Amino acid sequence: MNSPLKGVIPPMVTPLLQNLQLDVNGLENLISHLLQGGVHGIFILGTNGEGPSLGYEVRRRLIVESCRIIDGQVPVMVGITDSSWSTVIEMAHFAEQAGADYLVLAPPYYFPITQDEMIGYLEKLIPELPLPVVIYDIPGCTKLHLNLKTIQSARKLGIQALKDSSGDLGALYTIMDAFKEDPEFSIIAGAELFMSDVLMNGGHGVVAGGANIFPNLFVQLYEASINKDLETVARLRHKVLQLQNSIYMLDDSPTNSIRAIKSSLSVMGICSDQMVPPLESFPETKKKILAQRLFQLGIKENAGYENQ
Amino acid sequence: MNSPLKGVIPPMVTPLLQNLQLDVNGLENLISHLLQGGVHGIFILGTNGEGPSLGYEVRRRLIVESCRIIDGQVPVMVGITDSSWSTVIEMAHFAEQAGADYLVLAPPYYFPITQDEMIGYLEKLIPELPLPVVIYDIPGCTKLHLNLKTIQSARKLGIQALKDSSGDLGALYTIMDAFKEDPEFSIIAGAELFMSDVLMNGGHGVVAGGANIFPNLFVQLYEASINKDLETVARLRHKVLQLQNSIYMLDDSPTNSIRAIKSSLSVMGICSDQMVPPLESFPETKKKILAQRLFQLGIKENAGYENQ
Amino acid sequence: MNSPLKGVIPPMVTPLLQNLQLDVNGLENLISHLLQGGVHGIFILGTNGEGPSLGYEVRRRLIVESCRIIDGQVPVMVGITDSSWSTVIEMAHFAEQAGADYLVLAPPYYFPITQDEMIGYLEKLIPELPLPVVIYDIPGCTKLHLNLKTIQSARKLGIQALKDSSGDLGALYTIMDAFKEDPEFSIIAGAELFMSDVLMNGGHGVVAGGANIFPNLFVQLYEASINKDLETVARLRHKVLQLQNSIYMLDDSPTNSIRAIKSSLSVMGICSDQMVPPLESFPETKKKILAQRLFQLGIKENAGYENQ
Amino acid sequence: MNSPLKGVIPPMVTPLLQNLQLDVNGLENLISHLLQGGVHGIFILGTNGEGPSLGYEVRRRLIVESCRIIDGQVPVMVGITDSSWSTVIEMAHFAEQAGADYLVLAPPYYFPITQDEMIGYLEKLIPELPLPVVIYDIPGCTKLHLNLKTIQSARKLGIQALKDSSGDLGALYTIMDAFKEDPEFSIIAGAELFMSDVLMNGGHGVVAGGANIFPNLFVQLYEASINKDLETVARLRHKVLQLQNSIYMLDDSPTNSIRAIKSSLSVMGICSDQMVPPLESFPETKKKILAQRLFQLGIKENAGYENQ
Repeated sequence: MNSPLKGVIPPMVTPLLQNLQLDVNGLENLISHLLQGGVHGIFILGTNGEGPSLGYEVRRRLIVESCRIIDGQVPVMVGITDSSWSTVIEMAHFAEQAGADYLVLAPPYYFPITQDEMIGYLEKLIPELPLPVVIYDIPGCTKLHLNLKTIQSARKLGIQALKDSSGDLGALYTIMDAFKEDPEFSIIAGAELFMSDVLMNGGHGVVAGGANIFPNLFVQLYEASINKDLETVARLRHKVLQLQNSIYMLDDSPTNSIRAIKSSLSVMGICSDQMVPPLESFPETKKKILAQRLFQLGIKENAGYENQ
Repeated sequence: MNSPLKGVIPPMVTPLLQNLQLDVNGLENLISHLLQGGVHGIFILGTNGEGPSLGYEVRRRLIVESCRIIDGQVPVMVGITDSSWSTVIEMAHFAEQAGADYLVLAPPYYFPITQDEMIGYLEKLIPELPLPVVIYDIPGCTKLHLNLKTIQSARKLGIQALKDSSGDLGALYTIMDAFKEDPEFSIIAGAELFMSDVLMNGGHGVVAGGANIFPNLFVQLYEASINKDLETVARLRHKVLQLQNSIYMLDDSPTNSIRAIKSSLSVMGICSDQMVPPLESFPETKKKILAQRLFQLGIKENAGYENQ
Repeated sequence: MNSPLKGVIPPMVTPLLQNLQLDVNGLENLISHLLQGGVHGIFILGTNGEGPSLGYEVRRRLIVESCRIIDGQVPVMVGITDSSWSTVIEMAHFAEQAGADYLVLAPPYYFPITQDEMIGYLEKLIPELPLPVVIYDIPGCTKLHLNLKTIQSARKLGIQALKDSSGDLGALYTIMDAFKEDPEFSIIAGAELFMSDVLMNGGHGVVAGGANIFPNLFVQLYEASINKDLETVARLRHKVLQLQNSIYMLDDSPTNSIRAIKSSLSVMGICSDQMVPPLESFPETKKKILAQRLFQLGIKENAGYENQ
Repeated sequence: MNSPLKGVIPPMVTPLLQNLQLDVNGLENLISHLLQGGVHGIFILGTNGEGPSLGYEVRRRLIVESCRIIDGQVPVMVGITDSSWSTVIEMAHFAEQAGADYLVLAPPYYFPITQDEMIGYLEKLIPELPLPVVIYDIPGCTKLHLNLKTIQSARKLGIQALKDSSGDLGALYTIMDAFKEDPEFSIIAGAELFMSDVLMNGGHGVVAGGANIFPNLFVQLYEASINKDLETVARLRHKVLQLQNSIYMLDDSPTNSIRAIKSSLSVMGICSDQMVPPLESFPETKKKILAQRLFQLGIKENAGYENQ
């Protein structure tokens, strides 16, 4: 029996140079920042990592360099979601060769498809994949909100975990109930605000964008949640709410949190905030506000170490 | 002054072998079928061409082979839409080198973005593109319904045409009105059912999936529409409606027409109906119904030539 | 055989006093303005009439007064749509007693329901209704976009017409094709921009909000469309587009056209622009812009008479 | 200072005779069932009560009879939401005269409106209302998901509580954080599955449809949640999940839970399952399955008393 995937797994931002090539120095800083914060895994090439916007050379280089730097300290999860069928399989094999541990797969995101078409897709795809698979529900990007039947079908095909970024906690609780007798299957929350609820009700981990900024805050909240230390949960959960309200809400674009997280890392001196179109970095005026707010939130204690 | 893009431009299906490699024989048959039908251009790697699902090697081979076979007889439009920024630019240059005439660009389709973010994206992208650009509005796939301001901004950046597959004729008529004094800008309808309305009210062309099956039917309807021959329009428009009702509605998946068109070409002996996941060919039982209905609709006279 | 419903049928604005009681003087002015413009029917208590926002006493008084003033000169259609089941039936009988000619019915608009639930609703309701029924598709308000099967079921139950305000011309053309052999069934377009297309392709009439302002413009466009006088259609259709672009787009709320139409009637001295919450009249600054634009569009010739 | 609204408040089903008149016997049974179950308030004329579908005579009679039967034992909340402006105010005054304690108000549900239009509506409406107001967020029915700014504006106008049936727990947590220093304002969860999360994180009560069937189950879960008795929470929360999965999911219409709850009360002999169109009772075959499942779930112990 495999031990299930669990803990705090940041969906890592991709540090980039101005020419959109990989910033290897920034990557080393960022991974060091995350590992010092005590995270239990690192997920690269996800939504926060701008995976689908990157060129394939950069994706491959990021996989190789991340695996080299992380060097087995924690599991590496690689996003392979793509609209292109053969590219999904190629990237999966590339990740396996590079030493990654898990593949993360959302629906192919161009065509609108039905649940049954998604099941058919997984039936063809999963046997081709060389590593354990985490299925990723993010309907805001993919247009398909995976239902219980689809996730059960995927489980029969061998997937190891669900990462839920649907925002639909009602559906997630129903799914968690359906899998509660399946000790090898992990439920990973994608919404920071529900993190403690999901963990206290039987979930296994969290992919929290904010853990790029404050990894240790999320690690502490994870531990308090699984230990059912309600007072600590209440205190730390409030900090996560502040992060949400003061950092993510700086504008109201649908990707505001993704942009705010990368800008925060730049303010903190970890890596630049260079983004790939269509996403854009914050202008200087917003970065100044961001710097003040990060300071108010207490960068040092929340990051979990003293690098400022 | 450039003469604007116009006429019937099928969004060409991509003929594939069972191993998902390009079926060059099928491609020759299909291009020959379209050119004999009198089409005015061919659009490859669009939604009907399953462009975003194809591997990049197949996409490049399709560009090269299509340009070789078409050989300047009609303009070749190449879909370059991608969630990956650098890949859009690479494919654009590849298409230019291969001899293509136009690039077709929809929003990058992973992240939900705003109209202003789309304008920012175009401001950075369009100067990098080596060929005239057709902007492509297909919110059912991209989640962004381009508004008038975005299209006007894109026009200032140099785009040559709008291909509208939004299904929102009210918005399209407003856009057409805004561009009616701009003789170099083309309005290309993507909805077969509105084709004659758009053409009779000042539009320039149509990208009709059904023109893969019956190219000459659409060419005749195009000519009747621009000549305002209302009786012929009424007669041919009814055939387009029959195509819709008897062929596309064979199931109710959101991609039913795409799958029906590829299956029809297989029934007609032009190319196989091999599709790329997540889309799936029709099962044999449906293909039999399809064959009967195509026969009832009159394959030969609508295709415009005698190859059966 | 009944002659089908046809022509230009304004969805009449409800003239109100500041205390939200019926403005009978304004009503007389407005009906006179519409009849002088040559309209073929008048639809009261629809969406433009703010029907669902009005108190029931006002609704009843409006029905009585409208029937009295119109006095059989044109058919009177009364909107009876309500979330309250028994109220629909009561208002239907009230309208019949008052001398109305048709009832207009959209789905009950509180609960989200399925097509089959709508069919079940109609099966129970339509036998209770004492006048011919026009079914009204307006998913932006009701959340249900009536499909072909539902409309066919409603037709079997005896409905006389479809008024389509879905904005989905593709679906409407499919419906029109399905009913083209049914000479007693009318297709009434609700979208001004598609009016000539629908009429030229077999539709029977139009419920155009703008006909409150410029009834004769729409009557002329109706006649040109059914006579297939393409030059006149093109000229008048352009005026409708201008009305849309210069008058309706004064703000971007979802009900901008409804508010603009009532304000326009106020600017023209026909009735006040008092609205019922949640809708609000335009502020004075906007009304000044509106007045200028109405003047530019040519109030007098478009209204079809000389009352200014 | 008022003590805030709190506890388990069933959104009471409306017992009806076959002729759609109020079933006063059924109403007495149902209220007795709820009060014996220990509920802290009763909400009539909400979504589960089919409020917007009822005739106004029945609504008035229900208000009067409910206030008479409840007789001050717990607070009575009355849904006054209506698309008709003056009717909202009339029903509010009627409820006050009848002895109700709170008014529950959702957006007027016909026109699509903006947040700012909703704020304008509340600014006009709330000063007219004679009782404390609970604002009700149920975008699945009203099309408007109230945002933080709107709720803060409503609070300044004097509302006492938010009842959230949006299903969007992320937004609710942000709202709860914004109001955590406001001891007189109540947060009432509308989603049964989030009930314990909301209560443990600072919420005050729950409007749970399932409390019609098993009032005491929800009362026990409420108490365990506010006492942070995690073991009991886990055990009872599982029963709520079973209720959801075995009773509500009997079909997949959007109103399946509303119909299942009324049918359950019929199976339990409390009142008939007569519904108002457009909603329909379950057919006999489904009621048999329902009866078995209710028995398996343990009607008696969950209802909290012995009346079967």
